[in-house]
Amino acid sequence: MVVEELEKLLEEKKYIEFRRKIQDMPPQDIAELLEELESTQAIIAFRLLPKEKAADVFSYLSSELQAEISLAIDDKKLMEIIDDLFFDDKIDFLEEMPANVVSRILKNSTEAERKLINQFLKYPPNSAGSLMTIEFIDLKKERTVQEALDKIRREGQDVEMVYNCYVTDSKRKLEGIVSLKELVLAPPDAKVEDIMRKDIIYVNTHDDQETVAQIFRKYDLIAVPVVDSEKRLVGIITVDDILDAIEEETTEDIHHIGGMSPSDKPYMSTSPFTLARKRFWWLLILMISGTISAYIISKYEATLQQVVGLVAFIPILMDTAGNAGSQSSTMIIRSLTLGEIKYKDIFKVIWKEIQISVIIVIGLATVNFLKIHFLEGYPVEIAFTVSIALMSAVCVANVIGGALPIIAQLFHIDPTVMAGPLITTIADAVSLTIYFALATHLLNIPV
Amino acid sequence: MVVEELEKLLEEKKYIEFRRKIQDMPPQDIAELLEELESTQAIIAFRLLPKEKAADVFSYLSSELQAEISLAIDDKKLMEIIDDLFFDDKIDFLEEMPANVVSRILKNSTEAERKLINQFLKYPPNSAGSLMTIEFIDLKKERTVQEALDKIRREGQDVEMVYNCYVTDSKRKLEGIVSLKELVLAPPDAKVEDIMRKDIIYVNTHDDQETVAQIFRKYDLIAVPVVDSEKRLVGIITVDDILDAIEEETTEDIHHIGGMSPSDKPYMSTSPFTLARKRFWWLLILMISGTISAYIISKYEATLQQVVGLVAFIPILMDTAGNAGSQSSTMIIRSLTLGEIKYKDIFKVIWKEIQISVIIVIGLATVNFLKIHFLEGYPVEIAFTVSIALMSAVCVANVIGGALPIIAQLFHIDPTVMAGPLITTIADAVSLTIYFALATHLLNIPV
Repeated sequence: MVVEELEKLLEEKKYIEFRRKIQDMPPQDIAELLEELESTQAIIAFRLLPKEKAADVFSYLSSELQAEISLAIDDKKLMEIIDDLFFDDKIDFLEEMPANVVSRILKNSTEAERKLINQFLKYPPNSAGSLMTIEFIDLKKERTVQEALDKIRREGQDVEMVYNCYVTDSKRKLEGIVSLKELVLAPPDAKVEDIMRKDIIYVNTHDDQETVAQIFRKYDLIAVPVVDSEKRLVGIITVDDILDAIEEETTEDIHHIGGMSPSDKPYMSTSPFTLARKRFWWLLILMISGTISAYIISKYEATLQQVVGLVAFIPILMDTAGNAGSQSSTMIIRSLTLGEIKYKDIFKVIWKEIQISVIIVIGLATVNFLKIHFLEGYPVEIAFTVSIALMSAVCVANVIGGALPIIAQLFHIDPTVMAGPLITTIADAVSLTIYFALATHLLNIPV
Repeated sequence: MVVEELEKLLEEKKYIEFRRKIQDMPPQDIAELLEELESTQAIIAFRLLPKEKAADVFSYLSSELQAEISLAIDDKKLMEIIDDLFFDDKIDFLEEMPANVVSRILKNSTEAERKLINQFLKYPPNSAGSLMTIEFIDLKKERTVQEALDKIRREGQDVEMVYNCYVTDSKRKLEGIVSLKELVLAPPDAKVEDIMRKDIIYVNTHDDQETVAQIFRKYDLIAVPVVDSEKRLVGIITVDDILDAIEEETTEDIHHIGGMSPSDKPYMSTSPFTLARKRFWWLLILMISGTISAYIISKYEATLQQVVGLVAFIPILMDTAGNAGSQSSTMIIRSLTLGEIKYKDIFKVIWKEIQISVIIVIGLATVNFLKIHFLEGYPVEIAFTVSIALMSAVCVANVIGGALPIIAQLFHIDPTVMAGPLITTIADAVSLTIYFALATHLLNIPV
């Protein structure tokens, strides 16, 4: 309703009223609104924003709209917006922009800033370095609380995070942390040194964002300092950026577990072609790997010719083994993500999966035997064959599902990418092989 | 290494040195250490903690160890710890404790506190009410900035979150928000009214934690106020609790997608029996639902008797359809979680899935036909039958996978619980039925 109303104001060129209507809206909501307008209108609406709000709104726009706006405005206006962005938002923006926009911005930046931007663009994606911002308050330990608060008053306006201040020495090495709460609560003439905490939780520029997220969760932080290899403070990561990073990582993991290439754009605004591309290759690989199962079955064609009833149990075997494998792999993948399981635990995991399997297969095989033999009236040999095949297949699938993600991680392969397709393929092949081998022997069928 | 060292100090009864070693450790690390000790030693170590650290460490312990410690210490010591906990940690603790511990605590609480505790225990799990804490700074709009800061100095020590202060009227209705940053940066004689923001983002006590998480992400918050049905401010939720809630929800979703009941305890410290129980029922249900596929196959036994080679393609069909269905359902489930898709989008989703399917199946069916006919030398009728069955099965699986999670959500069923097993079963049944029906007709086999 709000969108339509504002759209109408724009159409009727009632710009003053439009401006009045949006002035109290949070920047995130204005950005959402702009995304829903068509692009010429979105650009007009963006131009109407009060100067102090423009950069804030800009930082929440999709990179597509950011690019369109950047191309539509002149250098002066563009630089005004860019200069008002927090440094981490500026880097995010530059990473996504077409080359001509990037070069316009670099051309209009100072030498020092160009150097800094280039340095930040070099941090690997998903590293702490790529998430951090350079706007923070640094204090010297010899100062008093009053002097520290005065500094925050002077510099705080342009700093994203003032709630944690960082105490550094003359070489920019991190010596302590003091929160704004501690500063406000301390007597004004106390020394920063006396109230700062020295047990500092920090991360390194090359740490993975998953590690950073674990640290935020464990220590209940709202910001964490980032240091370089010489332990110099180079930036901070704030909790809102970690929330976004966690959302992205989780989407990626869930898409991988669902067997496709992850998509970081919303489903509704992604074209069917792009979505099809993200799914096609995995399906193709799985379809082709199904050839292994097909080969196993065709090898036992003679057996099947004799007892065609055996075919009926192929889906049950394959599905149950596949599901068991995906249960154990999903569980282990999640534990790896949360840092609960390490490489060295692999044998403990295998042993636990064996124990779990024994408990599960006794139950499943019993139900299966009773159902096939008594309820459906198949002969005891067939019920027995199916049940034994089921037991072995579930055990193998569980153990492989448990071990494979850890092995993948050991070789620096994302466990979510590798586990799914491989486990399905292996579980299928194992369950079919055991099933037919058993059937051939137990039912005394000549191959 | 640290753990062993500290364990040794405890064994040798070098308590003073132990105390000295741990005094600078963050409470989260001390809690982690206690969890690794055996329980009698953990209780001794806990007693050795300095009084001001005990409650903090206690709030990070597992509920098992919390219960053991609660039973080992006397009422006075227990109440000291409980009184030092933040209110949300207190409620979390009480929810997990055995009845005798809870009654000891309630017996030693004041009438007013008992009432408040009971009220909080009634909020449904995973609701905003169950996540919130009652310690926050509320201000009156007539006050000056100086008076507000003085109040924060007086009350701030015992308050978890001082970075956002909430302005309420005489009826406790929320009127505005002012951050500590804004207070520190404002002139001391300004009125709170003049600097507070009135565009308040808030949640209701009954809102689901997923909704709350979405709001935190969208608006980059570090705390959000919680109001009751009369818009009175009853508590706040801090970002660290939302991080924990997101972790829990994600684990739950991923476990559901992997086809099992979610487990909220770490894998390594959960017994094989418990883990087996979480997996068994789903496997059993899936195994039994496989009977449908078995029935379809047995109905076409005559067809198979004639062309036993058809069996070889059952795994490829089932796996590809199953995987396609899990791709689309996983994608839609994630979009529902992130609030990107609403109920009303169901027809758009179905239409998009049809478009995606068409693109994908043309590619898959072509590869499949070429492979079976030219590479593996099967007759053209079989290659054609398998390819057509594959195309139809993938389309159906994609559409069902896209629609089912939305329908589930519409009926207030967790889409992750329902989607997985149902889609596999339906995809299997559909692909087999189409395959055999087509084969019977195209290959002119008498049924």
